[in-house]
Parts: sequence; structure tokens; C-alpha cells
Amino acid sequence: MADVLRYQITAGRFADGVLPDERRLGEQFGASRNAVREALALLRREGVVTRKPGVGTRVVLPKYGHGLDRLAGLAEVMTGYGTITNEVRTARPVAELPVPIAERLGVDPAAGGVHLERLRWLDGLPLSLDTTYLTADVGLRLLDCDLAGRDVFSLIEETTGQRLGTAEVAVHAVNADPDTAALLGIPDHAAVFALERLTRTADGRPVDVESIRIRADRMALTATLHRGLPPVENPL
Amino acid sequence: MADVLRYQITAGRFADGVLPDERRLGEQFGASRNAVREALALLRREGVVTRKPGVGTRVVLPKYGHGLDRLAGLAEVMTGYGTITNEVRTARPVAELPVPIAERLGVDPAAGGVHLERLRWLDGLPLSLDTTYLTADVGLRLLDCDLAGRDVFSLIEETTGQRLGTAEVAVHAVNADPDTAALLGIPDHAAVFALERLTRTADGRPVDVESIRIRADRMALTATLHRGLPPVENPL
Repeated sequence: MADVLRYQITAGRFADGVLPDERRLGEQFGASRNAVREALALLRREGVVTRKPGVGTRVVLPKYGHGLDRLAGLAEVMTGYGTITNEVRTARPVAELPVPIAERLGVDPAAGGVHLERLRWLDGLPLSLDTTYLTADVGLRLLDCDLAGRDVFSLIEETTGQRLGTAEVAVHAVNADPDTAALLGIPDHAAVFALERLTRTADGRPVDVESIRIRADRMALTATLHRGLPPVENPL
Repeated sequence: MADVLRYQITAGRFADGVLPDERRLGEQFGASRNAVREALALLRREGVVTRKPGVGTRVVLPKYGHGLDRLAGLAEVMTGYGTITNEVRTARPVAELPVPIAERLGVDPAAGGVHLERLRWLDGLPLSLDTTYLTADVGLRLLDCDLAGRDVFSLIEETTGQRLGTAEVAVHAVNADPDTAALLGIPDHAAVFALERLTRTADGRPVDVESIRIRADRMALTATLHRGLPPVENPL
């Protein structure tokens, strides 16, 4: 039941931000009053709703869907929802890339690169903490750009004159460590997304590797999947 | 640093299951011994690695990548990794569907349907808890099938003679509630994926709505994203 309500909240179903009362929810779900209360308590602990006597259950914040169908920067995705601003905490050249980062970028560690750390805000509330390493040729051009106001993706395309091509993404769910929790304004150990993304220019060259912590009470990741070709053989 | 190591573990980088020692990791990342220890402590708290004096840091369990590129059942995805078995906790017709479920399936609640709950195991360890509602015409045929050994997706295709088409997926990260945590064998409040999936047959008709809790210490969700067409206008 909590899952269905969470889906409905993400889908913008409660336009006025108010959920039906307990009795009505019980009818809709064919559930007992206790089951309704447990589901609502769960959503309250997740920070998705507040509950007050006389006022009822309200959606705290809309939960945004970030499409996993297409490679896009956060500000692009959020067009129409609100304004993304970036608190640039680090933006500096590094003479030596960490070895595993250099491996992912396909360059020698000694080639160096650029390190960015940005806390990203949506309409004044923290949304994600992005740590980025860029290859030197691509990254150094960005250091003079408006990193506070713009997506890195569109800046890369503008400064290199090349389109981005693909990105390999891995999404993890983890408990927030205390530092991240403090920066994002969430409780210690709250569930957050940890998203790893390796982005390539259209010619296939990796240029940007990111590690992003995203507040999971504010964002869901969405996709439309296609069945595609039948599996070669039945696995079981 | 923890993010990069988590990525490497998911990518199967440590084939023998042993991470480099603290000194070597410090060199690779250009990080202090303290920073290395903090990163490894974080991964230990997530249940990804164990640390023992004299033995070093070992990967507890491989973390599997579940592709978000294509609609596939768990057993299909896991072919080659291990064997999925399903503990069928509920498999029954329901005379009246919960109203929000009926809305998503595009049927009248009084049309009824089928309710499944399955705890899914990979090689003897719990991986996910799947709650499924199916339309009556599709679901009733499944009740006589081998729900313990087979994916629902392939069973739907076999019993209806229709291919599945697309699914809309929303992925949330949440803290596990105590019931779910106990079933999945993880600590209370551990971060888990909560995945909502509405699946349609090839003709576009919704037939299957699922709510799935997935152990996030055992699985990452992966995708390759394409940049596609340029955005219509620069948002900032």
C-alpha cells in the first residue's frame, strides 16, 4: 500500500498535496485502519508526507522523476519543475588522477584532469552531491565557465563543439554517510541513490566520470523498458 | 573513493574477491590512510565487504547489475550468474482489486484479478520481495503454473501466446521497514530499492503491476543512456 501511494505521489496524483483520509484510503485499498496507518507512518518516516491531526496527510515535497531513458543533465531534466543552481565546492585541475578514475577515462594518471564537486539545489533545497572527474582537455575549458548556473553536459558540448554520445550508468541505493547527510539536509542513514556515470563524447571517448548522491525522498528514477527480442532460451 | 570501489566491485574488478591493501589503495587514490579506512568502513557498513586483520578486505557477495535497458524477468537476467527460485507466499484470485491498482491496470475493481507475493532467492540467499497484481484474464491462468521455478513474464507470454511490450518503471531508494528487512535478511533501515513496474502486453494493454523490494547490497541497476536529440532550448 505504501508503494502504491508512493507511486501516486511521484505521478503527481494528489495535485493539491493532500491525501485522502484514513477511512477513504482503507476503502480504496480494501485495508484495515491499522494497515492504512502503518503505510502512512512508513511514508512519513521516509520524509514523503507529514501527518497532523485535523489537517490530514500532506505531501511534503513533490518527488521528481528523472528519466533513465536518455542522457540529460539535471537542469535539462528539471526544466518546467524548477531552477537548478549549483554550489561549486571544488573546481580545480589535478596533476595526477586517482588510478581507478584514470582507468575508467582511458588515460594515464599523469595526464591529469579536472575535479569538480557540486552541491545541486532545486529551488533552494539540496537535491544531490556530484563529484566529477573530467579529462584534462575537456575539463580545463570548463573552469572559466558558469559552473554555478549551468549543466556540465551542455558546457562540454559548447566548449568542445562535440555532442555527447552515450553514458554507462549504475544506480545503487545506500544509506547516507554522516557528511553527505549533513550536506543534503537529511537524517543520517537515510536511503539515497548513489549513481555512477561514465559519459562519452559522440566519438566514443570517455571524458567525464561522476559519482552522484541523490536525495531519494525528492527523486525517483524512471524508465520505459521494451521487451525487445525473445530470450535465446528459457533460463529455468 | 567508496563510490569508485563500489563501482569496481559491481564491475567484477576484484576477481578473487580481495581488495588491495590500505597502503596500495592509498597510492591508487592519492588518499591518506585515514581516508582509505573511512571508505572501507562505509562499504563494510553497507554489507559490501568484510575486513579482518591479517586477511584484509574481501567482497562479501558479488553485486549483480540488473539492466534497465530492456524488459526482462529476474531469472532471465540472472542466467549465467546463478539460479533464481521463488518462495510463493501468496498466489490467489481476488474478487475486488484495490482501487489504485485497478486504475493502473485500466479495469474496474470489481473485475477482480490475481495477487502474488514471492520472495525471490538467488542461490539460496534472498534477493527481492515481489508483490504483483495481474488482471483476471492473464492472472488466473498462472495459478496452475510453476510459479516457484519460473519468471511471471515468460509464463504470461506462454499462457497468453502474446509477447509483452513495454513497462513503465519507477525506481525509489527507501529504508527497509522491519517486516521487509526480516524477510530479506538485512538490518532494519538498510537502504533497498523499491521498484514500481507496470507491464503491458505488446498490444499496449496493462496486465501486471508490481511493487518490488530489492536488496541493494546485492544488486545495482544499470543502463546505457543515449544523448539523443539536442534539447529544444538551453534551460538556464
